[in-house]
Amino acid sequence: MTDRKPPEVGTPAGMRVLNQRAVLDRLRRLGAATRPQIAKDTGLSKPTVGQALVDLERHGLVRPIGRTTAGPGRSAVVYEPNPLAGYVLGVDIGRERIRAAVADLGGSVVARVDERNRSRSASSLVRTVTELASRTVADAGIALSDVVVKVIGSPGVIDQRSRVVRHAPNLPGWESAGVLDGLESSLGPAVVVENDANLAALGEHVYGAARDVRVFVCVTVGTGVGMGICVDGVLFRGAHGAAGEVGFLPFGKSASDVQRGQFEEAAAAESVVAHARELGLAARTALEVFSLARSGDVQALEVVRVEAERLAFLVAAVAAVIDPSLVVLGGGVGSNVDLLLPPMEASLRTMTPLAPRVVAGSLGDGAVLSGAIAMGLEAARELVFEVTL
Amino acid sequence: MTDRKPPEVGTPAGMRVLNQRAVLDRLRRLGAATRPQIAKDTGLSKPTVGQALVDLERHGLVRPIGRTTAGPGRSAVVYEPNPLAGYVLGVDIGRERIRAAVADLGGSVVARVDERNRSRSASSLVRTVTELASRTVADAGIALSDVVVKVIGSPGVIDQRSRVVRHAPNLPGWESAGVLDGLESSLGPAVVVENDANLAALGEHVYGAARDVRVFVCVTVGTGVGMGICVDGVLFRGAHGAAGEVGFLPFGKSASDVQRGQFEEAAAAESVVAHARELGLAARTALEVFSLARSGDVQALEVVRVEAERLAFLVAAVAAVIDPSLVVLGGGVGSNVDLLLPPMEASLRTMTPLAPRVVAGSLGDGAVLSGAIAMGLEAARELVFEVTL
Repeated sequence: MTDRKPPEVGTPAGMRVLNQRAVLDRLRRLGAATRPQIAKDTGLSKPTVGQALVDLERHGLVRPIGRTTAGPGRSAVVYEPNPLAGYVLGVDIGRERIRAAVADLGGSVVARVDERNRSRSASSLVRTVTELASRTVADAGIALSDVVVKVIGSPGVIDQRSRVVRHAPNLPGWESAGVLDGLESSLGPAVVVENDANLAALGEHVYGAARDVRVFVCVTVGTGVGMGICVDGVLFRGAHGAAGEVGFLPFGKSASDVQRGQFEEAAAAESVVAHARELGLAARTALEVFSLARSGDVQALEVVRVEAERLAFLVAAVAAVIDPSLVVLGGGVGSNVDLLLPPMEASLRTMTPLAPRVVAGSLGDGAVLSGAIAMGLEAARELVFEVTL
Repeated sequence: MTDRKPPEVGTPAGMRVLNQRAVLDRLRRLGAATRPQIAKDTGLSKPTVGQALVDLERHGLVRPIGRTTAGPGRSAVVYEPNPLAGYVLGVDIGRERIRAAVADLGGSVVARVDERNRSRSASSLVRTVTELASRTVADAGIALSDVVVKVIGSPGVIDQRSRVVRHAPNLPGWESAGVLDGLESSLGPAVVVENDANLAALGEHVYGAARDVRVFVCVTVGTGVGMGICVDGVLFRGAHGAAGEVGFLPFGKSASDVQRGQFEEAAAAESVVAHARELGLAARTALEVFSLARSGDVQALEVVRVEAERLAFLVAAVAAVIDPSLVVLGGGVGSNVDLLLPPMEASLRTMTPLAPRVVAGSLGDGAVLSGAIAMGLEAARELVFEVTL
C-alpha cells in the first residue's frame, strides 16, 4: 500500500514501531487499558508504553476514553484502539439482492443498504455495485477514500491470476473478461473479491454459529449451491480457488449418468419449485414450498424430504472427504433447518458413519456481508498501521 | 521425551543451544559444509560456529567427512549431520502383506523386510508386527532402543483420544480396544500410528509423484479405498482423523438408495473380481483382471471401464470439495493407471469442469513405508537434538 520501507528491526526507529505495534495489539486483543496495565501485559516499561501511546494517539490509532476512578494509586488514563482510524466496506452480490455495509475499525456497522439486483449485464451490475457502495459510504458520513479495504462477495470461482470469475451462471455476463478490473477501477484501490460462500463461512466463524469450531463447512443452498471451508479460522480455497464448489458434486442415477452441474440442478431453489409443481402444488418460490410444508401440506413435505435427502448426500460426501465437525446450513433453501434437519439426519444415518453435526447458520441472509466485513477488518487493521506510521 | 527443561532463551546456555541448532539446521538443509561456509550462511561468527561444531560432534550429531582441497585459503574440515545419530522404523500393515524398514537419520534405508500377513486376530497381528520390527532392527545391526521414532501405517481412522482404530474392517479384530496400547507396549516408547493412506500421500510428497505440489490427494484403491490429503506439505486429517475416508462416499442409484460403505464395496478389488466373474471371466484377483485387459480381453476391458468410471466419480467428488491440483493414484487396483486413465479422463470430462490432473504414484507398493520413514525422520531429527543436548 505504500512504497516507504518499514524501519528496520534493531534500529531505534524500528524498535519504536515494534513497541507501538505491541501496545496496539494488546489493546485490540484484550480491550481498553491504562498505561500500567499495558506495561504489565506487554512486558514493556511504563515510559516505553507511554511514548508508544503518544505516538499512536498522534496518528489517530488509539484514543483516550476516560480515567480510572476506583482502585489504589493515582487515577490513570484509559486508552482504546480508535475505531474511527478507518472504515471497511462489505458488499454481497446475489442474484436477487445486493447488500452493502460500512463498518468502522471497531467493527461497528455504521451504514447498511440492501436492494434488489435488477442488473441483467455485467457492466450494469458493476455500475449498481458502485452506486450502492457510494450511497452506503455517504450514509456513513464518510468518503470512499476513507475506506481502507473493500471486500466484495460474489458467486463463482474468483480466478485471481486470469482476473475473471468462473462458474457464476446465475449472474448474467459475470464470467466475461474485465469484470474484476471494472470493479477495481470504479471502486478505487484495495478491492478484494471473494467467493460468497467462503465469506458466509468466515462470517459464521467470526460472528455466528461456528465460533471456536476448528474444522467446519458452511453450505449455502438458494439460487445456487455453494460451500465455504474454514480450518483453524482460515478459509481453505483449494489449488485454484474452487474448493467448496459442491454444485459440481457428481450426482446421478449411476456413475455413467453423471453430468456436470447435476447436483446444483437437483438441489438449488428452482428444483424445489419444479418438484413441487410436479406434485401438483401451485408454489412459485421455494419459500412458498417451505411455508406449505410448515402448514402440514403432504405434497410439500414430500418435496422437503427429497431435498433433505439430497442435502444429506452432499453432507455425507463432504464428511468422507474432509471430516468437518460441523456443517452450518444457510441460504434461501438451506436455512429451513426446522423442516430439513429431521429427514436429513435420518438419511445421514443410513448413508455414512461419519455424519457431522448440522445446524442452521445464525446470521441468516447477512452471513456473506458479515464475512466481508470480518475479512475487511482483518486486512484493514494491518493496513492502517502500516500506512499511518 | 525428557523431563529436563530446555535452557532458557537469553541465557548463555540457551544461546549456545540455539547456535548449535542453527548450525545443525544449516547442515541438514543445505548439506555438508566447512566452518566458514556455515558462518556465512547463518550469520554467526566463526568462533561461535566452531564451538557449536565441537559441541555437536561431541554429542554425535555432526561428523567430519574430510577436508577441502581446492580453492583459496587454508584447507578446512567439512562437516555433515551424522546419519548415525539415530534410526527410525517404519511399518506398513496391510491385509495381504506387512512391510518394515529401518532408516538412519540421513534417510538411507539400512534394512527392509516384507512378508505375508497371516494374522487373523488383533493379538496375533500385534505379535507379528513386533517380530517383524525386531527382525528388521536386527538386520540393520542395531537394537530397538536405537530407534528414535517408530511410525506404523494402518488402515482405518486412528482415534488418538479413545485409543482405538475405527473403520478397518479388512483387518480382523483390529477395531477392538487395546490394539494401539498393545503396539506401544511391545514396541516401546515413541510409537506413532498413522492412517496408511495418509502415509502414502506423505511418501509421494517427500519422495514421489507429488513433490512440490501444494494441494494434492493420494488415492489408494486395493483391498479397500483410502485417501490422504496433503496441503502445503502437511497432512490434513479433518476434525476426527477421518478426512479422506472416501470408501464412505455416498454412492448409489439415487440419494435414497445410498447405504454406508457402498462406494468402497463398488470400487475396491473384490468388486473388480466380482464384476469380471459376472461377465464370465475366470479371474481370481484384480491383478488377473488387469492382465486380461492388458492382453485385449473385451470383457476385462469392460470391467476396467466401469471401475474407471467409479474412480472418476471419486475424483469428481474430491475436486468439488477441495479442488486439488493433482490426484496420485496407487494401490493394487489404482496403480493400473495405463488402463484406468483414458476411460477415467473421458468420464471426468462429462462429470465435472474441475477435473484435476491424475497420475500414477511413483513409489508403487512402497508408498506407505516411505511415508512412515519420512514422518519418522521429521520427528526424529527434532527428538535427537532435544534428547542429546
